[in-house]
Amino acid sequence: MSGRLAVIGLGPGNADQVTPQAANAVAEASFFYGYKPYLDRLELRPDQTRIASDNREELARSNEALAKAAEGHNVAVVSGGDPGVFAMAAAVCEAIEAGPEEWRAIDISVVPGVTAMLAVAARIGAPLGHDFCAISLSDNLKPWELIELRLLAAAGAGFVIALYNPISKARPWQLGRAFECLKAVLPGTTPAIFGRAAGRPDERIEVSLLANADAAKADMATCIIIGSPETRIIKRREKPALVYTPRSATGSK
Amino acid sequence: MSGRLAVIGLGPGNADQVTPQAANAVAEASFFYGYKPYLDRLELRPDQTRIASDNREELARSNEALAKAAEGHNVAVVSGGDPGVFAMAAAVCEAIEAGPEEWRAIDISVVPGVTAMLAVAARIGAPLGHDFCAISLSDNLKPWELIELRLLAAAGAGFVIALYNPISKARPWQLGRAFECLKAVLPGTTPAIFGRAAGRPDERIEVSLLANADAAKADMATCIIIGSPETRIIKRREKPALVYTPRSATGSK
Repeated sequence: MSGRLAVIGLGPGNADQVTPQAANAVAEASFFYGYKPYLDRLELRPDQTRIASDNREELARSNEALAKAAEGHNVAVVSGGDPGVFAMAAAVCEAIEAGPEEWRAIDISVVPGVTAMLAVAARIGAPLGHDFCAISLSDNLKPWELIELRLLAAAGAGFVIALYNPISKARPWQLGRAFECLKAVLPGTTPAIFGRAAGRPDERIEVSLLANADAAKADMATCIIIGSPETRIIKRREKPALVYTPRSATGSK
Repeated sequence: MSGRLAVIGLGPGNADQVTPQAANAVAEASFFYGYKPYLDRLELRPDQTRIASDNREELARSNEALAKAAEGHNVAVVSGGDPGVFAMAAAVCEAIEAGPEEWRAIDISVVPGVTAMLAVAARIGAPLGHDFCAISLSDNLKPWELIELRLLAAAGAGFVIALYNPISKARPWQLGRAFECLKAVLPGTTPAIFGRAAGRPDERIEVSLLANADAAKADMATCIIIGSPETRIIKRREKPALVYTPRSATGSK
């Protein structure tokens, strides 16, 4: 008897950025697995059960949730942002591939959401208006050398770069090192946007230039967007500046 | 007297993927500018006015919308997906930068949405589960050589690649050429996902391998996701296959 497992994206954190599809999926599930701060966003009914776990326990959490679904229950795994972007959907797939055959019979669905870089970009203009990439700066699951290689490849080819998981207590130096890498190949005048908690009451969006980008301004809740050499800043007298990347590109630096 | 202009992302096309924030922004606006198929998704009141324009008229549409907002009106510019990803937010910023000084006093907001690659990824598993990029294949606004350079840089560095604007009547050969480029640097067994109209009634999601990827399967409404060498396919007996990119990476091919 196989149940259902929905991996649900709750968006950036503001209730009005949760899609009706996500809200419906939450209403239908009985057991909720997730990192505690994401579960705390939900208003569950008395008949709904939450099982909180810590950050960096994604695989164990996926295994527990799949085992519960395999018993025939309707299970939800929740993520902030979009569950497919550096979040729980990949962890659940990994667990299915490594797990018992019966887990492949579970009805799996993924409910997309507004991921952090889109929420941050929206608050400042359109920095992702042209070709862009998303890179996780966490070297827990990949070698740092690979991260540097990707930063250099992306910047050299003119991609705008969104940095996820920029910094944590266990990874204090990586973001500063990433800035150093990027400074070697991008103009110091390239816009660098620090977007913290976009759309939430404690939101803080700051525009800096790569030359002055200060890793100390970021925390775990920050998504950083580094422009391409084509990214522009529009100064406005009565309003905050807009940052955008034009739809056209020449490729020359 | 300056009005307001909201650039609103309507998501992939399914009503239950429109955020409450977007629905509220639609309810508040009086004049709606956009590509006709996106405007057709809205149920407007009699006191709300729609001004439809054709594809590829983004700059003219932005100018019109800004002029209307500068008269003191509450104006909406609508996009499918997310307005910051190959869509109207960048066009509006371009128009502001080139336009009269008074346009800089307009209250501009961007309402993010679920962009196509997230919707497609959600329907198939978690192909964007690790570092990825988004590239527009349209060479209307950038030279084709730059697109090839970016495809090769991204594939060579191990990014998963989402292709937007893959094909149109005016651009019939670009997608096939992109596949040829990618085949030169990626294994033929790399998964290639053709995601058309994800989440809509006419949805069609197909998983192919890069070696057999057929450009004729794509149309303007298709977003294509090309895996990295680490992307995996999980076969399931009773369910469609899942495609995902693991959270860990070694960087070796």
